[in-house]
Amino acid sequence: MKSAIEELKEKGRAAKEASRKLAYLSTEVKNRALHNIADDLLAKKDEILAANQIDYREAEASGMNAAMLDRLMLSSSRLESMAQDVLAVEALSDPVGEVFDMRTLPNGLQVGRKRVPLGVIGAIYESRPNVTIDIAVLCLKSGNAIILRGGREAIHSNSALAKVVQEASEKAGMPEGVVQFIENTDRALVNHLLKMGDTIDLIIPRGGAELIKFVNENAAMAVISGGIGVCHTYVDRSANMEKAVAIAFNAKVQRPTVGNALDTLLVHAEIAERYLPLVAAEWDKAGVEMYCDQYAMDILKSSASLKLVSATDKDWGKEFLSLVAAIKVVDSLDEALEHIERYGSGHSEAIITEEYQAAMRFLNEVDAACVYVNASTRFTDGGQFGLGAEVGISTQKLHARGPLGVKELTTYKWIIFGNGQVRS
Amino acid sequence: MKSAIEELKEKGRAAKEASRKLAYLSTEVKNRALHNIADDLLAKKDEILAANQIDYREAEASGMNAAMLDRLMLSSSRLESMAQDVLAVEALSDPVGEVFDMRTLPNGLQVGRKRVPLGVIGAIYESRPNVTIDIAVLCLKSGNAIILRGGREAIHSNSALAKVVQEASEKAGMPEGVVQFIENTDRALVNHLLKMGDTIDLIIPRGGAELIKFVNENAAMAVISGGIGVCHTYVDRSANMEKAVAIAFNAKVQRPTVGNALDTLLVHAEIAERYLPLVAAEWDKAGVEMYCDQYAMDILKSSASLKLVSATDKDWGKEFLSLVAAIKVVDSLDEALEHIERYGSGHSEAIITEEYQAAMRFLNEVDAACVYVNASTRFTDGGQFGLGAEVGISTQKLHARGPLGVKELTTYKWIIFGNGQVRS
Repeated sequence: MKSAIEELKEKGRAAKEASRKLAYLSTEVKNRALHNIADDLLAKKDEILAANQIDYREAEASGMNAAMLDRLMLSSSRLESMAQDVLAVEALSDPVGEVFDMRTLPNGLQVGRKRVPLGVIGAIYESRPNVTIDIAVLCLKSGNAIILRGGREAIHSNSALAKVVQEASEKAGMPEGVVQFIENTDRALVNHLLKMGDTIDLIIPRGGAELIKFVNENAAMAVISGGIGVCHTYVDRSANMEKAVAIAFNAKVQRPTVGNALDTLLVHAEIAERYLPLVAAEWDKAGVEMYCDQYAMDILKSSASLKLVSATDKDWGKEFLSLVAAIKVVDSLDEALEHIERYGSGHSEAIITEEYQAAMRFLNEVDAACVYVNASTRFTDGGQFGLGAEVGISTQKLHARGPLGVKELTTYKWIIFGNGQVRS
Repeated sequence: MKSAIEELKEKGRAAKEASRKLAYLSTEVKNRALHNIADDLLAKKDEILAANQIDYREAEASGMNAAMLDRLMLSSSRLESMAQDVLAVEALSDPVGEVFDMRTLPNGLQVGRKRVPLGVIGAIYESRPNVTIDIAVLCLKSGNAIILRGGREAIHSNSALAKVVQEASEKAGMPEGVVQFIENTDRALVNHLLKMGDTIDLIIPRGGAELIKFVNENAAMAVISGGIGVCHTYVDRSANMEKAVAIAFNAKVQRPTVGNALDTLLVHAEIAERYLPLVAAEWDKAGVEMYCDQYAMDILKSSASLKLVSATDKDWGKEFLSLVAAIKVVDSLDEALEHIERYGSGHSEAIITEEYQAAMRFLNEVDAACVYVNASTRFTDGGQFGLGAEVGISTQKLHARGPLGVKELTTYKWIIFGNGQVRS
């Protein structure tokens, strides 16, 4: 263990050292590295897939469920898609070096801010091996060195992918050591990683609620994490029925296992009798179970085929991550806003309305990372928002909110050009 | 104690409640509140000065030193100057509501970011009563509710000033409860304040290193703090002698007790014999003690009048906060950069040079909140940088770096205008 800790610290020092040079590396070299990574994901396909097979067979033997096995599995087409994503990040403009807020003060000092990388980013993630590539390329594009610590289940896949990134970036002329991969998946090492505040500037945990809580409570450095996504869609009295059905259906069904999926549907009492049977019929076809308040239950219970459950207080503010939706009928926009204020997790919230004032109030008054009018909350995603990709979704307020793209992996420093000025 | 904790939590809830309305209050009302505060600082002068007298006499009786007594004391002219500062913040443009990065996606969704307040800000500060006004007006201008916890020594002054802010802002039409002041200065209550992550979005500690360390280790919410300022001025071989003397003199002497004052002077060996006697003579007149490395000592020791001490390793990276400067002679810009990387605290660093390449390398390679060419590090200040005022200087990298003005007390949310879009 002692040598493993020493090795970990050595990786931290190497990343820190590399980050100093990486900070002012040209866009050209960074893009070349990304291009090499995309090429090598295909050129080294056989090695990567062979490594992935080891993980897959071990996981299968240990009884991993089909959904998790699917997340773990790599294939030629998945590698091709990963390579395409890398090229998309290569095509993004480089956020580093941008100078903004520059002004000349009365004393002649020129003061402005210059965008710079954060330094060294540590990523602790679970399961899906493509996260190794996603995080590495976003960090490299934004000039950050990276320390990767993936999950035990995907260790051979992650290791092979990290090797691709390391070789491809060195070949492009990046400083040695910009990508560090932790081979040892001993859980105890994570504690030591979280104490390396002198070499790691930011930790990004990606995984379940337990991992995120542990990292937030124990990290000696800054953390950006997503936490849970309890997302509401509020169907206002003036909503267009067709849009309201399509949006609620999409938000719940298109991919129910993710943070931006609908959890609770709020419906204005004036249109509940008309709207609820329509959306319930569609949801039912997709197998959605509905946890209804008394009002919604009264409206829907005559349809014997629906999977209805009486909602209890603990169903509000719950992230279902499955084909379950809670339904509540509200008397007003105010009641909807209060419900979201109380139970929302600050991730993604939507209103469906044709009333201008209702839309404006919802946009103003809902305090969440992403606030929608007449669209599905499923759009909360770096790729969808035009950021190219994301390292995660932040539900905290400081530094960055919502999808974290390359710009969100940077900070700024003040630069001051003087000519002998002193303060009087 | 139980009732004090309950009262504290009640203040938190009241601030949270008020912050919801404050978030979308018009600039007009916020500016009117600030204007009222400036007026009332003068109109209620007698009450404020009487309260300050109580603190002053108690502090004097308890043996507080003259410098601290001076920091504590208010006067008519100090109140007038505080009122001017409030009007300067009123004159700043309102950062809240700015929409940026707005784009229309191929599917017709309009996606952008809107600047919004952080919510509730807690300030824990020591000694100087004007901090009550500084922090309150910056928070109100940026639409944040505020919980103020000042030091015991200034409790009567702070209380009177907080009352001015509370009355002036309510008179302007601000929601009740936007400014909460903690009268009870029991230290144990701070622990409870730091656990109120459900009502407080950000804690700003202003005070000594011990306070900042305690807050960082115990806060359940985000913290922005300054920590220490170990500032270097590097005099390059090509430096203009006159500027280099004036800048080093100003950086050390103009106000030695603050974070942006010079701690270590680094001097290129090629010009050390010419430069060091010049700056040492000026510093000596102001009473500066010089902790010299062997090389600098050899140059300066012939001037018997100077207060010279042989530097030891622990003098590098030390924040002196007094008329003491460490001096080190370096062989190259690289050595200076390495020294700063190793010993700097990421606050303010300066190079004095006439060489373009040296200036550019210094700006690029030094990783600090503020990096200067040919100017005194004493300029690191929100007022000096044109931010109007500041709640502190951040030496962390996330969210905001350097002086924290009104914009740095905000965050953003993504706003998405749709027309029925769903994700495919």
